[in-house]
Amino acid sequence: MTRAQYMEVNGPIVRKYLKKFIAEPQKKIRLKNYDAGQVQNESLKDKSDEEVNEILKEVLKKDQSALFAAQDLLAASHKYGILIVLQGMDTAGKDGTIRHVMSGVNPQGCEVHSFKVPGVEDHAHDFLWRYEKVMPERGMIGIFNRSYYEDVLVVHVHPERMEELPEKIGPDATGFWEGRYKDINAFEKHLVRNGTVILKFFLHISKDEQKRRLLDRLNHKEKYWKFSVSDVAERQYWDDYMDAYEEMLSATSTGYAPWFIVPADHKWMARTFVAEAVTSAIEGLSLSYPTFPDEQIQHLTDAKKQLEEE
Amino acid sequence: MTRAQYMEVNGPIVRKYLKKFIAEPQKKIRLKNYDAGQVQNESLKDKSDEEVNEILKEVLKKDQSALFAAQDLLAASHKYGILIVLQGMDTAGKDGTIRHVMSGVNPQGCEVHSFKVPGVEDHAHDFLWRYEKVMPERGMIGIFNRSYYEDVLVVHVHPERMEELPEKIGPDATGFWEGRYKDINAFEKHLVRNGTVILKFFLHISKDEQKRRLLDRLNHKEKYWKFSVSDVAERQYWDDYMDAYEEMLSATSTGYAPWFIVPADHKWMARTFVAEAVTSAIEGLSLSYPTFPDEQIQHLTDAKKQLEEE
Repeated sequence: MTRAQYMEVNGPIVRKYLKKFIAEPQKKIRLKNYDAGQVQNESLKDKSDEEVNEILKEVLKKDQSALFAAQDLLAASHKYGILIVLQGMDTAGKDGTIRHVMSGVNPQGCEVHSFKVPGVEDHAHDFLWRYEKVMPERGMIGIFNRSYYEDVLVVHVHPERMEELPEKIGPDATGFWEGRYKDINAFEKHLVRNGTVILKFFLHISKDEQKRRLLDRLNHKEKYWKFSVSDVAERQYWDDYMDAYEEMLSATSTGYAPWFIVPADHKWMARTFVAEAVTSAIEGLSLSYPTFPDEQIQHLTDAKKQLEEE
Repeated sequence: MTRAQYMEVNGPIVRKYLKKFIAEPQKKIRLKNYDAGQVQNESLKDKSDEEVNEILKEVLKKDQSALFAAQDLLAASHKYGILIVLQGMDTAGKDGTIRHVMSGVNPQGCEVHSFKVPGVEDHAHDFLWRYEKVMPERGMIGIFNRSYYEDVLVVHVHPERMEELPEKIGPDATGFWEGRYKDINAFEKHLVRNGTVILKFFLHISKDEQKRRLLDRLNHKEKYWKFSVSDVAERQYWDDYMDAYEEMLSATSTGYAPWFIVPADHKWMARTFVAEAVTSAIEGLSLSYPTFPDEQIQHLTDAKKQLEEE
């Protein structure tokens, strides 16, 4: 089945389904209203985790080849760049999503940026500077594994760390976070206006699922190097993080750069979700391969003749 | 069969075979001594192109999973970065090699840079500036699709364009190219000394094979957008390009950053070659996953206990 045939049948379902998980702009988001454990559709509900995973892996294979084709068209038409923002609590599945969704994409058309603790040079600039430097160009898919949204999360949850910020403001942060949300919205509006399509995914896992995943890492020595003891310590601030996420999602989900609240307790569910959303977004741009004026076709025909006569 | 088992049997053959195509340092390279049409080994010689391709595709699948494992280790050990330089005439297969060799690698661990015509800011700096800016960091594989080696090729073949260079030197370029070779060698020595492993691949195709590939592009409308009429025009300088490549390969193949002269008339041959060479290079670094001091293990054990008691 081609993608076109698949979408003719399933398109409305996919679109409706994706839409359901968009954080509605201008609305106060309550994460407890979003089921982190949701699986793709009703028909999967009675199946075991293993069965669901097997089915979704097959779905993802289809998605990957659709995404490969969509990326090729994106590069050829050279009109838009795609920015994918991935946020989520530790172990939410950001790395795995990148690896599994993007492994079929031409590596020349895709770049991943992970952002570490800001350095001296970053702090010497406005907080968006280091992200703007690495924005994807037209034709490219850029993925931010964490992003400028960290800049309205971690210190927000730990106000005692306000003084670490280059603004050196004290604990009274009245209007500070609202200012940053506005800066982010204006920044994203600017990007969208200039040809960047922005897709933001909050990988939503439950606290219980995080516990399972942390224990899994702790039970496998080869996963130790990916583990930080602070991951466990941060769990005591879980509710504060959810509050900060809710505020951030409510303030920055816009019509031009919406947040998807992705049910991520099932890894394969989150992966197929992101693959479908990115592919659908590119397909929705109605791009086409470049066409050539008659004069240029003539040049190509001449070149062909010249080669054949060599 | 695991990689270790595979290499126990085939390791000496693979290494001997890769070594055969290294441009020997300090030697004058003659490209006519390297067969662009060579296939992997004697046993493939009597097979049809289709059969060879099928076999090599299977080999590449093995190579891809070996490369995936090697990249994971590279990232975990965080000691070396890998720089892959791809050069070759138009249609030599640089794009296809990147796509097929790297499509199995974690996209977070791999970045591809294609270099276009230098801009005003590039010309305002030394010719290596724009490449140094995007060098892969430790743990990463960086791929240069064309590179600073273009800076000793195109204008070298077209000396009438010397005046376009920011140095604004006239047509008398005595010592100019030798100077650039020395700069490149010193630059690469610096990179190697500081933890970058450099692997350079010249994808070697014959003039006949290029003709076939150009005609193939001209016979498929959907490939038009990848085609430039100048590709055909540049063919009249084929011998000059080969001279420039020979001089460049002879001057810049060093023990610390060797050139591989990759037989590339068979696309799948070139792809498996590059995959094997990169994987073998990483394996040759004898890296290991990080180990943890007892104290840190204790922290992890405490964290596990804390989680279990939640």
